[in-house]
Amino acid sequence: MYPPLVLVLAIFFAVATAIAALSSPLPHPLDPLSPTELTAVRSTVLAFSLVASRPISFHYVGLDEPEKPDVLSHTNAAAAAILPRRAFVIARAGGLSHEFYVDVTNTSAPRVVSHGIHDGPGFPMFTTEEQVAAGQLSREYPPFRESLQRRGRALTDVGCGVFSMGWFGKNEARRLAKVQCFIVAGGTANYYARPLEGVTLLVDVEKLVIVAYRDRAAYSVPKAKGTDYRAGKAGPPFNGAVPAPGVVVQPEGKGFHIDGHIVRWANWEFHVGFDMRAGTVISMASVHDADADLWRRVLYRGFASEIFVPYMDPEEEWYFHTFMDAGEYGLGVSAVPLQPEADCPANAAYMDGYYVDADGKPVKSENIICVFERYAGDIAWRHTGVAGPIAPITEVRPDVTLVVRMVVTVGNYDYTLDWEFKTVGSIKTVVSLSGILEMKATNYTHVDQIRDDIHGTLIAENTVGVYHDHFITYHLDLDIDGTKNSFIKNTIIPKRNTGVRATSGAPTPRRSYWTVLYEVAETEAEGQVNINDAPADLLFVNPSKKTKVGNEVGYRLIPAGATATSLLANNDYPQRRASYTKKQVWVTPYNKSEK
Amino acid sequence: MYPPLVLVLAIFFAVATAIAALSSPLPHPLDPLSPTELTAVRSTVLAFSLVASRPISFHYVGLDEPEKPDVLSHTNAAAAAILPRRAFVIARAGGLSHEFYVDVTNTSAPRVVSHGIHDGPGFPMFTTEEQVAAGQLSREYPPFRESLQRRGRALTDVGCGVFSMGWFGKNEARRLAKVQCFIVAGGTANYYARPLEGVTLLVDVEKLVIVAYRDRAAYSVPKAKGTDYRAGKAGPPFNGAVPAPGVVVQPEGKGFHIDGHIVRWANWEFHVGFDMRAGTVISMASVHDADADLWRRVLYRGFASEIFVPYMDPEEEWYFHTFMDAGEYGLGVSAVPLQPEADCPANAAYMDGYYVDADGKPVKSENIICVFERYAGDIAWRHTGVAGPIAPITEVRPDVTLVVRMVVTVGNYDYTLDWEFKTVGSIKTVVSLSGILEMKATNYTHVDQIRDDIHGTLIAENTVGVYHDHFITYHLDLDIDGTKNSFIKNTIIPKRNTGVRATSGAPTPRRSYWTVLYEVAETEAEGQVNINDAPADLLFVNPSKKTKVGNEVGYRLIPAGATATSLLANNDYPQRRASYTKKQVWVTPYNKSEK
Repeated sequence: MYPPLVLVLAIFFAVATAIAALSSPLPHPLDPLSPTELTAVRSTVLAFSLVASRPISFHYVGLDEPEKPDVLSHTNAAAAAILPRRAFVIARAGGLSHEFYVDVTNTSAPRVVSHGIHDGPGFPMFTTEEQVAAGQLSREYPPFRESLQRRGRALTDVGCGVFSMGWFGKNEARRLAKVQCFIVAGGTANYYARPLEGVTLLVDVEKLVIVAYRDRAAYSVPKAKGTDYRAGKAGPPFNGAVPAPGVVVQPEGKGFHIDGHIVRWANWEFHVGFDMRAGTVISMASVHDADADLWRRVLYRGFASEIFVPYMDPEEEWYFHTFMDAGEYGLGVSAVPLQPEADCPANAAYMDGYYVDADGKPVKSENIICVFERYAGDIAWRHTGVAGPIAPITEVRPDVTLVVRMVVTVGNYDYTLDWEFKTVGSIKTVVSLSGILEMKATNYTHVDQIRDDIHGTLIAENTVGVYHDHFITYHLDLDIDGTKNSFIKNTIIPKRNTGVRATSGAPTPRRSYWTVLYEVAETEAEGQVNINDAPADLLFVNPSKKTKVGNEVGYRLIPAGATATSLLANNDYPQRRASYTKKQVWVTPYNKSEK
Repeated sequence: MYPPLVLVLAIFFAVATAIAALSSPLPHPLDPLSPTELTAVRSTVLAFSLVASRPISFHYVGLDEPEKPDVLSHTNAAAAAILPRRAFVIARAGGLSHEFYVDVTNTSAPRVVSHGIHDGPGFPMFTTEEQVAAGQLSREYPPFRESLQRRGRALTDVGCGVFSMGWFGKNEARRLAKVQCFIVAGGTANYYARPLEGVTLLVDVEKLVIVAYRDRAAYSVPKAKGTDYRAGKAGPPFNGAVPAPGVVVQPEGKGFHIDGHIVRWANWEFHVGFDMRAGTVISMASVHDADADLWRRVLYRGFASEIFVPYMDPEEEWYFHTFMDAGEYGLGVSAVPLQPEADCPANAAYMDGYYVDADGKPVKSENIICVFERYAGDIAWRHTGVAGPIAPITEVRPDVTLVVRMVVTVGNYDYTLDWEFKTVGSIKTVVSLSGILEMKATNYTHVDQIRDDIHGTLIAENTVGVYHDHFITYHLDLDIDGTKNSFIKNTIIPKRNTGVRATSGAPTPRRSYWTVLYEVAETEAEGQVNINDAPADLLFVNPSKKTKVGNEVGYRLIPAGATATSLLANNDYPQRRASYTKKQVWVTPYNKSEK
């Protein structure tokens, strides 16, 4: 739903003002909704007379951010009081998706500003409550009990979970999902290691009824032994040689300050929000230009907008495993409390977040974001000068960065999502994948038995690790020195020399070199980039701001690491849904409604 | 000269023995030559009666490593005494390159084992002494003095350095190099910021004579102001907001032990050598398999074998800037002493290295390698389990790694070359580029004046940062569970589904997926990989070692970050010399002479 990279091309004029510190009790216009505000939203929606159907279940409640010019001018203290606080709500009632905008500027007198029925395709995120309830449906379902009996399994041996079923061309009014099950007996903590392969339920997660049931075939269940991941249960090396403990000590204390949701560190200032769907939202990041004694804007807003995870097994129980982790499960709802001195180092500070349950009541997520200074032993810049009258010189600047971390556990997978701010002015997003593979049970116990494509790797007896991709997409609304930005592609172009004289001097014996082709994106099509097509620098600049010698001032988008594109067919359903995964970069003009 | 990646395919049988600890005063067979041994090498070469010409200048002295089977069997203590200690020497005398093998097993009775004249193309590395002397030649050269006078510059304002001149089709008997100069007056520490553009000397670095002189044109010299990089002299932000200091404290002390050149840490054991040309050499890295209580071999030897740096300016003073930093300048000779608590964190240990000067005398490089445990705040593995009878579970393993670091300063550039060992068994090589750009003086002071290709970016008034590449190549002799290894390419292949039934179950609505094509390299041609051609896993396995379920045991080569290939024309001279830069991976059978 979100384009992976959004750039504001030309909507508003640059406001090159310093971002003023906020010390008033008034919320920053981008602060997430408080528990008081969330509670006011709930009561307002429940009291809304035009929606009579019950129950109303709340699937998303988040801040409806004010218009960008209003937020930017809010930094003038005089305007602080006038920005309205509004919530955007997605709720289900009577089999319909309702969208509300609720004004909670005055939490004693909240009001619905607008209400509409979403009539296009697509559904809101699952609620935790309906996932738990749908997972339980099988327990009272006689055919499922018979399936277990035939396999010699007790009901208490089994746990079932909700698997989104993707989209395969049919626009369904019901909110359907697949339910698949695992053997959870055997003492292992590894919920996903022992699939009850071959059994699939189709359920209506809203009505909480089983719509279809299929017990296609029985497969061997992988053994519990050797699957537990707890340190005390795992084999070597996980219970073995543990490296010596080390703690970062900061004799002068932390170098950053958190004031509400504003973080200030070194030459950086930014706002950290939290959203049910996106999790961490970085807003209004500015870097201090000490030369000009000016805060220069860089990033109006950035967040992880989607994680698309298609599995590559076309068989009946697996073809639909084409998850959209953000849009279906919610990265914010799935974020887990961070373990001090494990998920984050000892010198970290923590922030809490709030989301709402299906009933609309605020739920507090403690320690959901951590902020810490990273002392990794890296070198920011160095030079040893051995020549010249001032030599020898050794000048070394050790690297210290600031990390804002969230860990999202969507079922089996754990994503660590870091925003890393550097004193040189760059921002790095780092995604680390951890957790547990999604596994498929098989009767194979040895690779020599395999004759056809098992769509994965036999990783243990009776266990296939199924091939899959993870496409993690970021929404980045860059405001480089203001909102009026351009996207520039500097493509590296090979040049051939045919023995002719170079521009000046003697004829060159060089037969080739490369140069750079400068292109400004003029259309949305030119804003789409497949990074693997040609070596190129991707730059975001403010064309009205130049350096002393006339170069544009900008940020460079540097892909560090894997830059895959999807290998699915263009006409395949999961690919149509995630069509943006065919290119890594999409630059579009700012449009608030396209968030 | 070195292929980027060397893999032993099938020479010797696996020796799956544990690597015994060495506590005897006998050197490990891979230990670098000691000062005593280097001194013995020098006297032996100087006394060698078949080479009467004087002077003899020493360009390379390094360990001639014993044959691999001898080294591997040396781990049996009984064999320890019998391995000979030999040096390989490249020296110049009488205008010829002499190659010696010198036995120094008994340093009281060293002897030349073999001597030969190198009669192919190519020359050894520069010595420091000849670089310094060649840089001084201009001072007494009247045409150069006239050039300075015309420009109003004093001799004391100028420093000159040796620039290797690449290869452009001519096989020259003389050791020629270009000399180019910089204005070093003006109080800046930045030797490279103020080129005396347009003036080039061609010198014979051996005879120390000027062979040709060219003063083509005078260009504006960039101003000194704003070029100094010392913290006290640099402008903001480098003298500005400094992050809070942080120190890694290890309450139980360091977790690694250095015993001579052997490093032991967590489940790792490896040998750290030092070589004049390659710098850090990692040998015999083994990882402990706690399950089997066995040390398993991974890497017989690994080192950075070349850094090719072609510049992309075809003009007379720049076309030849096609450096081979290892082969021409030497990474070991160019390695710089590491600054404690800056180049390496406070919890680092340091090792020294030795090389020889032009006279063959040993020179000690102190603190040339550091070893430290890296606590970067990363997570090695984690999972939060929310479902199942044992939930909730949060299991987090913070990441601690071991880094072996060297910093090489080749003129203007500083390369930080890290080997990072991880407890999960992986090894990561990390290259960080720092230092100072190679700059070209120009009369331009603003980009609006530029009409043609200036082959770079106007980065300051009168200063162009010239386009260039850095290709850093590693020689990796992997011995995965023994020397008998295979190279496997698992290419990801898109599959299209035409509505037919999947292997079993109902017809699938999926129209596409991908699978993996397994290919074993049978020839050297199949061992060449352009990583950007197709998504693929590159694996090195021992085909005779299988897991319980029959999978091969191996290491995966994971390109992290930029994987460029050269854009130069195949028939261009620098490309012919660095032809390996057209593909990122070259796997060849082991051949000691191809090191």
